[in-house]
Amino acid sequence: VAQDDGARIRSIIKHLPPVNQARLIESSTPPTRRLLWANIADETQPEVLTELSEDIQSQFLERMEASEVAAATEGLETDDIVDILQQLPENVIQDVLQEMSWQDRHRVERVLSFDEDTAGGLMNTDTITVRPKFTLDVVLRYLRRHDDLPNTTDSLFVVNSGDEYVGTLPLSRVLTSDPSMTVREVMVTSVEPIIATATDREVAQLFERNDLVSAPVVDSNGCLLGRITIDDVVDVIREDTDHNMMGLAGLDDDIDTFATVRKSLPRRALWLSINLLAAFTSSTVIKMFEATIEQVVALAILMPIVASMGGVAGNQTLTVVIRGMALGQISRSNLGWLLRRELTMGLINGIFFAVSVGIMSYFWFGAWTLGLVIGLALIFNLLNAAIAGTVIPLVLKSMKIDPALAGGMIQTTATDVLGFLSFLGLATIFYG
Amino acid sequence: VAQDDGARIRSIIKHLPPVNQARLIESSTPPTRRLLWANIADETQPEVLTELSEDIQSQFLERMEASEVAAATEGLETDDIVDILQQLPENVIQDVLQEMSWQDRHRVERVLSFDEDTAGGLMNTDTITVRPKFTLDVVLRYLRRHDDLPNTTDSLFVVNSGDEYVGTLPLSRVLTSDPSMTVREVMVTSVEPIIATATDREVAQLFERNDLVSAPVVDSNGCLLGRITIDDVVDVIREDTDHNMMGLAGLDDDIDTFATVRKSLPRRALWLSINLLAAFTSSTVIKMFEATIEQVVALAILMPIVASMGGVAGNQTLTVVIRGMALGQISRSNLGWLLRRELTMGLINGIFFAVSVGIMSYFWFGAWTLGLVIGLALIFNLLNAAIAGTVIPLVLKSMKIDPALAGGMIQTTATDVLGFLSFLGLATIFYG
Repeated sequence: VAQDDGARIRSIIKHLPPVNQARLIESSTPPTRRLLWANIADETQPEVLTELSEDIQSQFLERMEASEVAAATEGLETDDIVDILQQLPENVIQDVLQEMSWQDRHRVERVLSFDEDTAGGLMNTDTITVRPKFTLDVVLRYLRRHDDLPNTTDSLFVVNSGDEYVGTLPLSRVLTSDPSMTVREVMVTSVEPIIATATDREVAQLFERNDLVSAPVVDSNGCLLGRITIDDVVDVIREDTDHNMMGLAGLDDDIDTFATVRKSLPRRALWLSINLLAAFTSSTVIKMFEATIEQVVALAILMPIVASMGGVAGNQTLTVVIRGMALGQISRSNLGWLLRRELTMGLINGIFFAVSVGIMSYFWFGAWTLGLVIGLALIFNLLNAAIAGTVIPLVLKSMKIDPALAGGMIQTTATDVLGFLSFLGLATIFYG
Repeated sequence: VAQDDGARIRSIIKHLPPVNQARLIESSTPPTRRLLWANIADETQPEVLTELSEDIQSQFLERMEASEVAAATEGLETDDIVDILQQLPENVIQDVLQEMSWQDRHRVERVLSFDEDTAGGLMNTDTITVRPKFTLDVVLRYLRRHDDLPNTTDSLFVVNSGDEYVGTLPLSRVLTSDPSMTVREVMVTSVEPIIATATDREVAQLFERNDLVSAPVVDSNGCLLGRITIDDVVDVIREDTDHNMMGLAGLDDDIDTFATVRKSLPRRALWLSINLLAAFTSSTVIKMFEATIEQVVALAILMPIVASMGGVAGNQTLTVVIRGMALGQISRSNLGWLLRRELTMGLINGIFFAVSVGIMSYFWFGAWTLGLVIGLALIFNLLNAAIAGTVIPLVLKSMKIDPALAGGMIQTTATDVLGFLSFLGLATIFYG
């Protein structure tokens, strides 16, 4: 039966373009994945591999010999080869490099020397360069000697005899300008080249703000090293926004949807353990008021409301602040305004919900003290949520801790603990 | 003093490129924003306006006359004009259209007729078209008659005499092929044109999968209507991922970081009201066990742990499933596998945390019954979280409700209610 399956799978996937083969693998469970991968033709494996997410790439690469990896990456763009190699342990990378042609190895080593999250790690080395003194006619004849231009080539780069970047020559200008003009006259110099050590987030902002399709990358001396193309920047943007959402749930952002239990469990269990500490802290606070609860059991019934309202309000503030920080919009100058706005909303919502919950509690339990206590505690906890949601991500960032990762948990703990404390504390005063 | 400020601001922003002026406005509080906008030169206003987020655009547009809007959008690309007009009420749009030149109005009306979230709403009408029978030499001479090509032009589109799309002619091919060849011989026909009614999410997936820079848009008869460029697709991708994160916190995804209290409050208050209903449901469940809690106050102290652990575990599952759905990876065929994986992790984590929490509770309160009850309730609630986190987004999607928006709240309610119910219910049995 398994043999039959193989034949059927082969006949189905044979006709799909590599990018769809990759999507199919990503949308499959691990056993199906192995079956699919085994049935992909050797010559399409490189292209399929680059389209897979890093997590899945490394699953396949783990089972390969160095020579197989070298074969599976042959003919790929430099940045794609580097992306794949970076999934491997250091000693395996060296083995794979030995299996490559001299030219490929040289190009790959240059990009590998940069950190994965920098402009250098994102770049390709397939630039087409021209000299400023050429006429466009010479450029046109030079281009016609190529079979085709590298993917996503919208401009050529202009370098001087010392390989220093001096400008960009968009293909559209080559096509629309008088062929007798020189490159120097036609080139664009308004685009600043990207330094290889710039972070990938900076690169993404530059592309987004200037609607770029490709941009030159230079070293600290201004020498042209390569270029970054929009398709790789799109991946950075996807990962960047994904990171915030996954981080808030305590998840690893490059974990694959169909990761196995073995892969997913450690991170999930770790997060639950941290939450357990937070929950025990809340319980310790509640235990301080054991006597009051014994006296008025209604407190135990109503106390989750105060904590839960604070948690939801705090999460709203936190999410707005984390997104604002990711977009680079929040600074010392507007922080005060932001905190005032959150406190204003906390106060308005606090008063509104204090009155409604207070009245409901009075009717439910027939005790006006209870309504007053829960009302006051709600106002306090919504103000607390406004402060916690604004301040926690900023403090974490200044401590170089990822706010998207730790922020949600700390904020919930703050609104839980202070919610229980204010509600039960006030009750003890009023009933004491 | 305000006059001085004006002069200082003018001198600072005058030297910034429009895109940075827009970033500055977005990173400012509302009062500063109005000051900045008033000091931006009339001729740069259009470009700054298109770079602003929709929420902020509409704040400025609200204060403008129809003729001012027409002036502030003059010279923009069609899709940018349409994006801006879509922030206005229907009758104002008509007024603005009357103020435009005939040609602009015609182009804008064509794009306006499509929904904002479709390929038609994303497209630009600035395509350059050629006929299949032309030689490249003719194409080259035709292009040289242009001053420059529209932004982000990486290919020309090939149409027949009936304006039907027949293929794409990449600029790189124009440059590298023999000028005596015809367009028909050189053009690419492997790229399917996008139907104008396709959703923006489908467009984004197509661009991402095929690393496109621009793509043709056609009507249902295959006639070329316009083209979509990667810079607009990048905005769609940003919004799409933002949407999931903001939705999970109950926030509007195009709300601006510095939105005023008046703008932010209704949505936040609505979300807190829904949460209040959920919290009251939990309280009603707890009230059912009032007698048991009166007897064993330790239950009130420990019960938040069961709810909180379930909430965190459920949120992890939910986030993974919502992301998987957004990436189009989850279908009926792999749902069973996914649910089994989540249940397996729920069971393993459940047993592990049941034992640890059970032992801690025993030492804390000196009652083995309590340890047993909380352990069993934890296992039950982590299994419940696995099911809720997987099934809720899928059910919501099949009901055409946005899972990112409603999923988090429903999931938390499920783990809270069933957490309290299982813990207090088991306690009532054991202590009853």
